[in-house]
Amino acid sequence: MQKITILIHCKDQKGIIAAVTDFIVRVEGNITYIDQHVDFEQNVFFMRLECELTNPNSNLTAIKNVFEQTIATDFNMAWEIHPKEQKLKMALFVSKYDHCLFDILGRYSAGEFNVEIPLIISNHWDLRSVANRFDIPFYCVPFTKDNKEEGEKQHLELLKKYAIDFIVLARYMQIITPKLISIYEHKIINIHHSFLPAFPGAKPYHSAFNRGVKIIGATSHYVTEELDEGPIIEQDITRVSHINSVEDFIMKGRDLERIVLARAIKLHAERKTMVFDNKTVVFS
Amino acid sequence: MQKITILIHCKDQKGIIAAVTDFIVRVEGNITYIDQHVDFEQNVFFMRLECELTNPNSNLTAIKNVFEQTIATDFNMAWEIHPKEQKLKMALFVSKYDHCLFDILGRYSAGEFNVEIPLIISNHWDLRSVANRFDIPFYCVPFTKDNKEEGEKQHLELLKKYAIDFIVLARYMQIITPKLISIYEHKIINIHHSFLPAFPGAKPYHSAFNRGVKIIGATSHYVTEELDEGPIIEQDITRVSHINSVEDFIMKGRDLERIVLARAIKLHAERKTMVFDNKTVVFS
Amino acid sequence: MQKITILIHCKDQKGIIAAVTDFIVRVEGNITYIDQHVDFEQNVFFMRLECELTNPNSNLTAIKNVFEQTIATDFNMAWEIHPKEQKLKMALFVSKYDHCLFDILGRYSAGEFNVEIPLIISNHWDLRSVANRFDIPFYCVPFTKDNKEEGEKQHLELLKKYAIDFIVLARYMQIITPKLISIYEHKIINIHHSFLPAFPGAKPYHSAFNRGVKIIGATSHYVTEELDEGPIIEQDITRVSHINSVEDFIMKGRDLERIVLARAIKLHAERKTMVFDNKTVVFS
Amino acid sequence: MQKITILIHCKDQKGIIAAVTDFIVRVEGNITYIDQHVDFEQNVFFMRLECELTNPNSNLTAIKNVFEQTIATDFNMAWEIHPKEQKLKMALFVSKYDHCLFDILGRYSAGEFNVEIPLIISNHWDLRSVANRFDIPFYCVPFTKDNKEEGEKQHLELLKKYAIDFIVLARYMQIITPKLISIYEHKIINIHHSFLPAFPGAKPYHSAFNRGVKIIGATSHYVTEELDEGPIIEQDITRVSHINSVEDFIMKGRDLERIVLARAIKLHAERKTMVFDNKTVVFS
Repeated sequence: MQKITILIHCKDQKGIIAAVTDFIVRVEGNITYIDQHVDFEQNVFFMRLECELTNPNSNLTAIKNVFEQTIATDFNMAWEIHPKEQKLKMALFVSKYDHCLFDILGRYSAGEFNVEIPLIISNHWDLRSVANRFDIPFYCVPFTKDNKEEGEKQHLELLKKYAIDFIVLARYMQIITPKLISIYEHKIINIHHSFLPAFPGAKPYHSAFNRGVKIIGATSHYVTEELDEGPIIEQDITRVSHINSVEDFIMKGRDLERIVLARAIKLHAERKTMVFDNKTVVFS
Repeated sequence: MQKITILIHCKDQKGIIAAVTDFIVRVEGNITYIDQHVDFEQNVFFMRLECELTNPNSNLTAIKNVFEQTIATDFNMAWEIHPKEQKLKMALFVSKYDHCLFDILGRYSAGEFNVEIPLIISNHWDLRSVANRFDIPFYCVPFTKDNKEEGEKQHLELLKKYAIDFIVLARYMQIITPKLISIYEHKIINIHHSFLPAFPGAKPYHSAFNRGVKIIGATSHYVTEELDEGPIIEQDITRVSHINSVEDFIMKGRDLERIVLARAIKLHAERKTMVFDNKTVVFS
Repeated sequence: MQKITILIHCKDQKGIIAAVTDFIVRVEGNITYIDQHVDFEQNVFFMRLECELTNPNSNLTAIKNVFEQTIATDFNMAWEIHPKEQKLKMALFVSKYDHCLFDILGRYSAGEFNVEIPLIISNHWDLRSVANRFDIPFYCVPFTKDNKEEGEKQHLELLKKYAIDFIVLARYMQIITPKLISIYEHKIINIHHSFLPAFPGAKPYHSAFNRGVKIIGATSHYVTEELDEGPIIEQDITRVSHINSVEDFIMKGRDLERIVLARAIKLHAERKTMVFDNKTVVFS
Repeated sequence: MQKITILIHCKDQKGIIAAVTDFIVRVEGNITYIDQHVDFEQNVFFMRLECELTNPNSNLTAIKNVFEQTIATDFNMAWEIHPKEQKLKMALFVSKYDHCLFDILGRYSAGEFNVEIPLIISNHWDLRSVANRFDIPFYCVPFTKDNKEEGEKQHLELLKKYAIDFIVLARYMQIITPKLISIYEHKIINIHHSFLPAFPGAKPYHSAFNRGVKIIGATSHYVTEELDEGPIIEQDITRVSHINSVEDFIMKGRDLERIVLARAIKLHAERKTMVFDNKTVVFS
């Protein structure tokens, strides 16, 4: 039985839920998951559904066409309908830190992520051996102040070649170029090693240590042009105390980074996030 | 504008959501909150809605009648419709521990609970002065092995006299009688000082200490005839270590008990819990 | 048997622990708690001990004198020795929010804090009735831009009259004057409703909501002249999501504020905090 | 400069700390970490120290001898002194679940564990490819009701051959034999997928789901003959709700198992745990 995922947002209006659920009934769909959210400040309605199409002759293209011409037009919706089993293609960008990379590839190998990882891109050669252990093509694309343009060109070629759907920066220590950001809008996930908006930018563990905080955190977010200011997908924290050195902060933080990034990847891969006005709606 | 809360559960079937949301539109309701849950194991559908009735002439009794005769009958629903502003009447049962009592009355005075507390019942006189501080009638109903029948009789009279909707056992150290439980089915909330099902029964902090656990917890649940086995509403935990004595466990546990009980009261008062098959659905 | 608490800090040197524990043996003390910390960055040694003086004829003044003339001089220590049972006198400053006040007075009445609360000071009359419920003298000291000097004068007189040891700002919505801060250096505890250093200043819940964070927090800290930049004593957080309004943030935050402030009061009252270089050492 | 770790426990007596710290001074040691704990119920004193031996001619064997003949004898101590840099040899036992294995090997490769992993033992061939990815010898030792004796014999031979110091059961689904437990007393670490003592034995996630708990947990502990009743090293939990299926419990639990087991390995490898009376002292 074909399963589909539907994502919708539009101006909040009376009758949307009734209209959508009614539509599903008409196309012989069986709703297995439905959640919705109204942002009353912005007056925006969000919805996520999963359905089984019980009629084996259902034609997804036809369904999409009817949806577009009826409901989507009536309510002026932004919408997406995807076959649920379709795996997104994910590119990994790394530099020299290997802990997030090992964690992602371990989870990938253990079948936890509903994605394909066709390649790993780095600005250094250091992690090639890790990529090799997991039999994933590894590309070293140098990326410095002086060769940003050439680097970006290579990135775009590789992403196109492998038909990449979204990008994960697993402690990739370079600023992403505006062009790449605009092509992959809300499709580049970064992990920042602080509970944003505290300690943006470089060396957050050192700043946290110097401030004497009692908790440290990590934040996964979509990359926008404003550094560390994109829509937050997930955050988590752990306790620290006066007995912890900055090296302890870094070590404890590694666990946070791993888990907060893994959760974000999972949410994005399962199409459970929607972005609006620099915030995320995260369906559970 | 009148606001109402609707709670529904029934066998899971196609078209329920469409039918319900359609009904709301017909009675000129504006849905401000909707959440639903399907228990696929039991094949049961749960739903909670909040609506504003935009027509000032709306008649709640009439709406209920139509609902009963149409949708509720069609889908064979168990359902409730309540005016949202109606405050539930809550009785507090206490013994000698005062920390939950102080917390509940402080929150009540600060306006955090949408309830009325017309009386406090205890099997001891010790906490009368606390009740007096907050100007709430205090009844001492002795309750021992030998006078359970007389005690239960007094309880029932007081609960009737004050038209009590639900009961909160704020560290009340007596077993509730089966008769009272059956009258107030899923309307008696207890706080147990462990993360159930670990350490049911007496002295859980001592048992936790002896076992050498690294986390302790508290559990709020609806009271059923099986001791500490009723549907769980909320749980939370805190970390302990080898440096903590059993007295430390008790002190740290007080904060857990307070907060886990307060959350359960809030959820029940706002009609955000539903019970099915000894489990709760807790709408957020 | 008399119990004492000893707090020490000095330049880290060889032999400190041996010298101190040896001293305790010599004065017939039985160590019941000992903890120490070395700040390797600053090269500072911190120590906290609790002892029972097993000789009923022990003279605390004499012990202090010997300590000062021997060890304290040898190692150039900053030190304090206090009788453990001595309760600190704590002044509460409040404005209009009552949730922290109710929580503190409830805990105080339930015997959780080893302090005396001789008075409550506010810049408004609103919370007088709460003070009355708990039979604590309440003083309204107006405090606006125009009468800061007069307000400060009254504060100082009241604090002197009641021999106040430390001050707790339980959501007191005014800036403390530099003079008061310098007199009560590291003896004024504030609760800020964010996980500092994120969202300092006014309206942190609104800022957190607008940023779309997935966790909110609260921070208790000693007040210094730099707003919200004093040494952090304790922090905690709770999860939020897109379904939460800013009002939900505020409501969830109340629980954080209560508990994070209560923990800081308890730590300070039990002399478990030491401040150095704008950070705290918090002994457990 | 040679670094050593000292672990001590003995009957609590006056003067232990003074004697030990004095000893360190005498052997030209510089204490870089010291922590102690007194179990007042059992009247037992525990201590852990890390020191640098500042004299390049220090002889560890000689130091141990003097320690044994003086302090250890005076106070009747159980004690250990280890060179800090010495890596423990750790054997991994697995069955078919790969998530803990991937996590441990990823952390091992990333340099997070101060151990050597000379071999992996399994009762199935399934995970050989994972071992191969990380270039670690993999042995399949069948282990069923009928061949326990033969299995145990092979285990003991392999553990001896590789000079294994401690064993980690990374979701190894077989009961360890009493003989192996007694040889590796408090040196076999298991991960159980519940917050013990709740849900011991098989299928804890299913039991947790059926009970309707709001939190699930994981527990790492030393293996003793009583199933799931050994000394607890570490526990952690995560929240679940009515929307989670038992498959969700299992998926969320994987993260708990990974992290709780990794923490236990790290603590054991750094000699930060001591066992007494079926409980652990865990130094931070």
